[in-house]
Parts: sequence; C-alpha cells; structure tokens
Amino acid sequence: MMKNLLISLLALALLAGITVSCGQQGEPKTEKATLSDEDKAFIDLAGNYFEPIPDSVPNVDNPIFAEKIELGWMLFYDTRLSLNNSISCNTCHNMSTYGVDNNPVSVGFGGQTGSRNSPTVLNAALHFSQFWDGSAKDVEEQATGPVMNPVEMAMPHEDIAVARIATIPEYQAMFKIVFPDEVPAVTLKNIGKAIGAFERGLLTPGRFDDFLNGDGAALSEKEKKGLDKFISTGCIMCHTGPALGGQNFFKFGLVVEPYWEYTKSENHDEGLFGITGIESDKYKFKVPGLLNIARTYPYFHDGSVWDLKEANRIMAQTQLNKDLSEEDLDLITNWMQSLTGTIPEDALRLPILPAATNETPKPQMTL
Amino acid sequence: MMKNLLISLLALALLAGITVSCGQQGEPKTEKATLSDEDKAFIDLAGNYFEPIPDSVPNVDNPIFAEKIELGWMLFYDTRLSLNNSISCNTCHNMSTYGVDNNPVSVGFGGQTGSRNSPTVLNAALHFSQFWDGSAKDVEEQATGPVMNPVEMAMPHEDIAVARIATIPEYQAMFKIVFPDEVPAVTLKNIGKAIGAFERGLLTPGRFDDFLNGDGAALSEKEKKGLDKFISTGCIMCHTGPALGGQNFFKFGLVVEPYWEYTKSENHDEGLFGITGIESDKYKFKVPGLLNIARTYPYFHDGSVWDLKEANRIMAQTQLNKDLSEEDLDLITNWMQSLTGTIPEDALRLPILPAATNETPKPQMTL
Repeated sequence: MMKNLLISLLALALLAGITVSCGQQGEPKTEKATLSDEDKAFIDLAGNYFEPIPDSVPNVDNPIFAEKIELGWMLFYDTRLSLNNSISCNTCHNMSTYGVDNNPVSVGFGGQTGSRNSPTVLNAALHFSQFWDGSAKDVEEQATGPVMNPVEMAMPHEDIAVARIATIPEYQAMFKIVFPDEVPAVTLKNIGKAIGAFERGLLTPGRFDDFLNGDGAALSEKEKKGLDKFISTGCIMCHTGPALGGQNFFKFGLVVEPYWEYTKSENHDEGLFGITGIESDKYKFKVPGLLNIARTYPYFHDGSVWDLKEANRIMAQTQLNKDLSEEDLDLITNWMQSLTGTIPEDALRLPILPAATNETPKPQMTL
Repeated sequence: MMKNLLISLLALALLAGITVSCGQQGEPKTEKATLSDEDKAFIDLAGNYFEPIPDSVPNVDNPIFAEKIELGWMLFYDTRLSLNNSISCNTCHNMSTYGVDNNPVSVGFGGQTGSRNSPTVLNAALHFSQFWDGSAKDVEEQATGPVMNPVEMAMPHEDIAVARIATIPEYQAMFKIVFPDEVPAVTLKNIGKAIGAFERGLLTPGRFDDFLNGDGAALSEKEKKGLDKFISTGCIMCHTGPALGGQNFFKFGLVVEPYWEYTKSENHDEGLFGITGIESDKYKFKVPGLLNIARTYPYFHDGSVWDLKEANRIMAQTQLNKDLSEEDLDLITNWMQSLTGTIPEDALRLPILPAATNETPKPQMTL
C-alpha cells in the first residue's frame, strides 16, 4: 500500500482547498493489542480522509433534549402533516429501509412524483446543507420543506399544518414544554426544530467506524483492498469526512459530460443552477454521503441507476475520467457493504399518536 | 341496575337466535377482595354479552410459531408488496393510530381512493369474517386482497408480488423455514398466511378486559353508567363477544332507513348484496367491533361520520329506533374510552427489511 502514500499526499494537497472536513480528526482511537503495523498504517492513512461518526451533531440554534427528541419522533411518524393525512416523513424516509423509500423518486400527494430522489435521513445532520441543491441549511429547515411542497405533503397553507397539530391537546402540552418561551408554541418552524432534533440522533455507526477507531479486524482483507482502491482512485477528493460526502457541491460530469449519457436520465436536471442562476453552477449537486449506501439504492439525484457497482463505474468515468476494471469495481462495491451501520433502536419504534379532535382540520384528498 | 336484569333477559332471548358468541363465557374471573356485591352482579351481567380478549386466536389451517410471526411482521411493513413500492399493509392499517389511517377511505395506488373505510387490523382475527362484506373468510385471506386490488397496492399479477419477495435471499430463507414442505415456499397464499400469523397477535386487552375479569375498579362510576346504558339500550344485540361485534351481518338501517339520510353518505353502498345478489342482503354490513373505537374514527363502512357521539346517536336511531338523550349518548361515548387497549410492544417495532436484488421487479408508478 506504499504507493497510496504518495497518491494520498497529492490528494491531501487537493483536499486542503476543497473540503471543510479535511484534517479534522475523529475520536481517540482504541488501539488493539493485535493491530499489525500494516493495519495501523492503513488506519492512519484512512484517518486522513474519513472520521468516525460523532456521538452527536449539535445545532446552537436548536438545543437538543429528551422531550424535544420525543416530540420530533412523534411528528416524524405523523401523517397529519400531509393534506390527505396519508404521508409522513417516514413514508419517503422509511426507517425500515435505511431512511429512504428505495424508489427513483417518491410518490407524493395524489400519486404525484417529484424529480429528485429522496436522500436518506440517516446521518443527514452530518451534511453541510440539505436537499440535493443545498436549498435548506440544516435538517430543521429541511423538515418543513416537504410539508409545504404541492407534490409531496401538499399543505396549501402553513396554518393548516399548524392547526393539524395545535388542535391536539397532547401535542399542545408537549410543545409548551419543549418551547416554553414561545407563544404560540406550535409553529411550522418549531415543528421543524422538533423533527430536526430527532433527526440529529439518526446516526448509524458501523464496522467502518470500528475500523477508523483502530479495530483492524473490522474490515475483511477484501474490504481493505476495496478501501485502498477507493482512496487511490481519488474518490476521496469528494467523499470525505464522517459522512463520506455531504460537505460540498460538485458538478455531475466534472471531467466527462453530460452525465445523462451515462445515467440515461430523461430529465436533464441542472442542479444548483436552478437556485443560483450562475452558469458555473450548472449540473452541480451536493456530494451524497456514502453511509449505508448499499441500502439506499437507486442512486444519484434522480435515482436513475439501481446497481451500486454501475453507479461506481459512472462516478469514476464522469468525475475522474477513469475506466475502472471489473475487479476494481467489485472491490470498491464490496467495501461499501462495511458502510452499512446500525439504526438506533429508539428510531425503529413507532409512537402511539394522540387522537385528533373535532377542531382538527379534516384530511383533503384533492387540492 | 335491577331494571336491566329484565331487559337483559329479554335481550338474551333475542340474542340466542342471532349471535354466535351468546352464552359463551370468558376466562375465569379473578375475584377481587374489595369487589362490591353491586360490582359483582354488574360484572356477571356484562359477562353475559362480552368476553375478555383471549390470549390467542388460533387457526387450524395456519399454525402460529415465532418464525412465522416474524416473517409476517416484516411483510406487514414491506412496501414492496405494492406495485409502486410505496404502500405497505401499515400504510392503511397504521399501528401508530390503532391499526387504521383515520381517513374516511384510504389513499391507494396513484392517489386513488376506495369506497370503504379501512377497518382496524387490531383484534381483527376475533371477527367471524373479514372486510365490511365478509368477502374474506379470515385474516390470512384478507391480507392478500389489497395486494391485488387495483386501487390499493395494485399488483397487476400475483407473479409480480411473489417475485418482489422471492428474489430476496433473506426472505427465501425465511419462507423455507416457515413453509418447509412447500415448493415453491414463496406464494401469495403463504405471504397471506405469514401476515395472518402476525395479525393474530394484534390483540389489545385494556381496562374493559380487566373489568370483565373481575376488577370492578377498572371502570369509573361514570363508565359503568355508560356500559349500563349501552346494555339497556339494546346495543348488545349486535355488539357482543370479545370484539364487541364482528360476529354477524346486520342491515344498516335495520328499523329506520335509508342509512344515508343519517350519515349523509353520498355513495349508497349496498353492502353484502354486492356479493350475494340476494335482495334481503341489501345494505347489510359486518357489525364492526368496538375495541379501540375511540381511536378508529371516522366511523361506518364509508367513514362518513367523524364524531363518536354522533355515530352512537345514528346507531340508536337507525338500528333501534331510539332517540337517546344527550346525557345517555355522553355516558355511552365516555364508556367507550375504556375499550382503548394496549397495542403489543413488538408490533410497534419496525423491522429492518432485507435489500432487494437486481432480479427484484422494479417499482412501477403507473398501471
């Protein structure tokens, strides 16, 4: 693996300018007595690009405590936040399938479909911004977006979403405890803060974290080869930090374009350009994180590719102008299995939701 | 309550001919040291019409064991049983809201809506048949109905539903353990059997069961008055047994018709007539169970009435030709809160579902 050291020094120099997580160190590593010199050197190398998932992801604007997490957990599973009372956050960010729905695009209000793939809510708080184009600054802001989106949960007005919750005495009491200084306590923004507090706990450490923390046996020899290939290929120029991504925008088709010739996408989504109108932002998307990537198919901003190996092939082609061998692609794809982590037990519990009242706005099936 | 004894003797005579649960006794009652004579007499009276929820509801054609329950639990939460990979059993029979979606009718494939209210899956196995018109004989048969219904999960062919599951190695292995003598093990019928095994455990004993089991203090004095009123009004002519219903068909508008003048239903659903074509079956529906009734709004076969007190008023009018006083309706409605039971902890856990493979049929968003 010595040749990687040279490549990695080069990559580090590149990374210094383009990622925010570069050079940050993870938790103190627990050195194992049996750790070989080779494993130690490799873990140290990996530590230059990756960090173990932290214990928490705080937000100074949204202090986290047990009652707020509980409230957010209930709201996350509550379909009343959708106009037709049939779609909850969990519908598209299904905890049973690693925070996604495994569809290219999600089915929303009245059977409508959006144009972008629902990213996983797991470890989303580690990202520097939310949505594929970064149009929400954090999970708190993101959480209210789909509620008001006409093709998703389709609330025609914020007041209806708020009334769905505020007319339920149990929710009123919880909001007063969680937001004691605010009148009214139930607002769309506070609904987002509570859901955000819940989502900040959706961290899924797994075998790769064990490896970064110094357990050389956490990855198989084949997986180590895959990680080595991932690093030496240059994937770590974008996929770094604790989420292996989510720290920057990059053009899809950075060196070879257009991307849709590879993905066969029918819709030529212009990404960040749609927000900024800046020509150089065309086809830029937030670099997706790779945690649980083997379970969050289909891939890319439009879910156009189902097979992880194929997605890896396209990435190497369009972003690095490299045609990887089948063997290399197999190695990288196999290593990515080690990124599948453990979903917190508490998040996999369904809440028993409080009953609506006669004052709660009724579901509406059409707009 | 002496006058009730006379009424109850009369009611018993009527019941003998028309219900299957009449005269059956519940579990041995645990007499409390503090039980008053009055409470004891009242519990004995109630025991003539009601039974505590049993520990299990076996089916000779579908032996229940842990692996089958686990498989059914996973399938219950798996959206892959719908063509668009977005609807699971739990979508309409949401465990967070007592096994219903709290909508008049459910939203299915492509935003379509059906014409009948989704009944709760909780305690459904106690019913003598399934669906509002009894068109499935048990929960095993019911479970596969929505999978193939074009306005629900919309599988155009049984083979697609089966392939969605059979192409997943983890499911294959589980089906082989659960149905060892069958080749192939994964069939739509066996999917229904596994889900049925899970649903047979969805029993929700609560305070009313404690009362029937001899705990006089399990109901408040006001609730006892409500129960007394429920019995003396004659509601027990239909709502009997462990599920307080689910044992027979009755015409909606038995003594005063048409029902839609009371419910304001736009669709004049003819109920059982649609299955049998027999004139006397017009407007007959399965008597709904009343367990968790305060949480399973809106009411009736079409979810046309949201308010439980209003539903009780309509029932007394159309089925018994009685105009109950506001006070009596309040008492009965208040007692019904004691029918809200405890959902099994295990059923409120979400499974982590196995990943699809490249062979798994992809979701289809249009028919």
